[in-house]
Amino acid sequence: MLSRKASEDSHGQDSSYFLGWQEYEKNPYHPIHNPTGIIQMGLAENQLSFDIVESWLERNSDTLEMKKDGMSVFRELALCQDYHGLPAFKNELVEFMAKIRGNEIKFDPKNLVLTAGATSANEILMFCLANPGEAFILPTPYYPGFDRDLKWRTGVEIVPMHCSSLNGFKITSSALEQACQHAKNLNLKVKGVLVTNPSNPLGTTMTKTELNHLVTFAIDKNIHIISDEIYSGTVFDSPKFVSIMEVINERSLKNDEISKRVHIVYSLSKDLGVPGFRVGMIYSNNEKVVSTATKMSSFGLISSQTQYLLAKLLGDKKFTFDYMEVNKTRLKKQKEIIESGLKNAGIQCLKSNAGLFCWVDMKHLLSYATFEAEKELWKMILYRVGLNISPGSSCHCSEPGWFRICFANMSQETLKVAMRRIKVFIDSNSTMISIKQSFVNNANYYITRREITN
Amino acid sequence: MLSRKASEDSHGQDSSYFLGWQEYEKNPYHPIHNPTGIIQMGLAENQLSFDIVESWLERNSDTLEMKKDGMSVFRELALCQDYHGLPAFKNELVEFMAKIRGNEIKFDPKNLVLTAGATSANEILMFCLANPGEAFILPTPYYPGFDRDLKWRTGVEIVPMHCSSLNGFKITSSALEQACQHAKNLNLKVKGVLVTNPSNPLGTTMTKTELNHLVTFAIDKNIHIISDEIYSGTVFDSPKFVSIMEVINERSLKNDEISKRVHIVYSLSKDLGVPGFRVGMIYSNNEKVVSTATKMSSFGLISSQTQYLLAKLLGDKKFTFDYMEVNKTRLKKQKEIIESGLKNAGIQCLKSNAGLFCWVDMKHLLSYATFEAEKELWKMILYRVGLNISPGSSCHCSEPGWFRICFANMSQETLKVAMRRIKVFIDSNSTMISIKQSFVNNANYYITRREITN
Repeated sequence: MLSRKASEDSHGQDSSYFLGWQEYEKNPYHPIHNPTGIIQMGLAENQLSFDIVESWLERNSDTLEMKKDGMSVFRELALCQDYHGLPAFKNELVEFMAKIRGNEIKFDPKNLVLTAGATSANEILMFCLANPGEAFILPTPYYPGFDRDLKWRTGVEIVPMHCSSLNGFKITSSALEQACQHAKNLNLKVKGVLVTNPSNPLGTTMTKTELNHLVTFAIDKNIHIISDEIYSGTVFDSPKFVSIMEVINERSLKNDEISKRVHIVYSLSKDLGVPGFRVGMIYSNNEKVVSTATKMSSFGLISSQTQYLLAKLLGDKKFTFDYMEVNKTRLKKQKEIIESGLKNAGIQCLKSNAGLFCWVDMKHLLSYATFEAEKELWKMILYRVGLNISPGSSCHCSEPGWFRICFANMSQETLKVAMRRIKVFIDSNSTMISIKQSFVNNANYYITRREITN
Repeated sequence: MLSRKASEDSHGQDSSYFLGWQEYEKNPYHPIHNPTGIIQMGLAENQLSFDIVESWLERNSDTLEMKKDGMSVFRELALCQDYHGLPAFKNELVEFMAKIRGNEIKFDPKNLVLTAGATSANEILMFCLANPGEAFILPTPYYPGFDRDLKWRTGVEIVPMHCSSLNGFKITSSALEQACQHAKNLNLKVKGVLVTNPSNPLGTTMTKTELNHLVTFAIDKNIHIISDEIYSGTVFDSPKFVSIMEVINERSLKNDEISKRVHIVYSLSKDLGVPGFRVGMIYSNNEKVVSTATKMSSFGLISSQTQYLLAKLLGDKKFTFDYMEVNKTRLKKQKEIIESGLKNAGIQCLKSNAGLFCWVDMKHLLSYATFEAEKELWKMILYRVGLNISPGSSCHCSEPGWFRICFANMSQETLKVAMRRIKVFIDSNSTMISIKQSFVNNANYYITRREITN
């Protein structure tokens, strides 16, 4: 009597990505109360810079109390369900987006659509750009939640574009063409490519070369580009972040048709660490997409109370400057701890410069170069080492042995505990590992050295 | 290159319901700055009791500042994106729902799904209960937004069930059967009936007889019932509100299959007057619906900041008691003003006891008994009288000449200005009207006297 969506489990929540969370919730680590519990390293949360926001909140209780010049604006906010959002908030958001991109691009608040989180922004774009049964190409590895966000309710299909460790999982013209051919074989009409830049799970920013391949491909095939840039404020190391919009401008395509087929998704969940406040958005130069998406945003508007607070917060330019600088410094430090901790255990990460996670190579720890072995290792790390990390298979990675490990949702102390646990695990299993390592070496599965840090 | 949803205007926003809003926005009434402007009577907002909430907010600045026992809970809230919502909030919500229903039913927070507004709640239920191309029966007249909420992105169809002014637009077994037959003729599989109780736009509560017809029908046909009860806290006059859940309990159907096919939609937008805060919810005894809807709520979660505030607000039992009592008294007073104002101009309303609007009979003012004439009259009232009201056709009413007029989004003074304008309009057009009235009388289109007040 229910719909197929409700009867079938097509939302993708049963992957190990989500299962690991459930295990963590049963036995969460606490330094004093549960020191042997599971450490949550599967959650891309930014908890490093709350103190800066808290100190701002302390100084701005008037805003929290929904007051302006001492007078309550509660009535106004309580009633404000206009899907265009608070103008002051949108103005601050586009300024913030521009600042993150080094003010190389100017964003127009008229082209911005507010949504209750990026989850909703991505789904709305699917509803706007593709009919059920049409497809979007996604480079692998990709964020596990996309299976739910892009496909579940829209009926849109995802065609994976397999990227390889041999070139550091970069997007190439031939990989794009192959994905297109694959879609053709499946009789699927491709409507666009969706990329995450910086990449989740890789933690890398896209190069101009990659972005250019993408734009050229989208022009040739007459399709859309969605650039999910929700980690754009987390770029803590060089090279600097380049937005798809910059490439469009540089190639003087701003007034070309392609410009109307490029759409950015953004959110404050990662860059400002407030996922609970549900602030997402779509930026598009396509008038029809903006107007349709705005109407669709009725299904997930942002609380006006929260819009009001964040408009004031982002409007404080000293705050945003300080926050961004300190936050990046802290992310970088945390990344260094995890990188050196893993290295100490003989484990390497993909060279990265952004995000709240590392993309970690554990192929040498697999009993066989298979996804079954990857799952075995994942379980061992979850239950025996007590770390919840995400296996590459949950990100649709085409090579077994990669894992995403998050580092920004915990203190340095907890991160160090995690690294010690890994070291102990590796050392106590060294004989076993050396045997397996020789197996994997023979299988010639190693990533080229230059793509790996150190 | 866009989807059909984006290319076609299938969201229903071009009805006169929404067009009237746009006209209002161009020329909004203000007692001093724009005394000849349009008065907005097409918006079901409750602005009558803000002072009570404001005075609570004034006394509880700690809650607004996201503090608990003087300590900040900002971090906790910033991170809380769990789609199960804040447990404290859900506990208060089910208590509030029970209180509105005279504590005749007990609600379990486990069966509650939080959504960003009832708009999203209704859409989620469609995604859970019906496949694209399947249908829900809706008694007419119904809320104009349902065309967007239920059909647009889900692909579900609405089969109108035509109710008649002859019995005060009540739901009857034969009307249900007719709608079912109509669906059959259209080759549509009916998955359920959706009712609004109290009704928007009628402003009436459903009788036990109607609810029993509905339950019997849903048992016979093996289909779902969605009861949208977002106005349940606005019942300001007898008879008292009866929820569908009470009928299920009274007929001892609680453990029957039908109980798992009854779903309630609720919201704080109307009863508490906070649509900008985006608080909606689904209550269902169906485990699978609850779990699927919970997953779907990812596309529109409620800001944790807002959940925290409202949990504290509703948790103050003295506040909720006072608010509900005072609010009902004020709604009743406002309703009396509009009713007597309209009567003074020779216009009658359907006898009602709830909601933020009246269902008004203006058939005698139509030049012909057609929807074209209704639109003409609507335009005249919008542009010449300066009132934005909603024509019955926008609510899919099957009889021309009915209008929904909202009364709770303005002060008594503004309401009186609106009534004076109507009176002047009618008086100055009395000769014309008397001619038309005789026409309509002949067409025998009158509602039976006992269903009309006075």
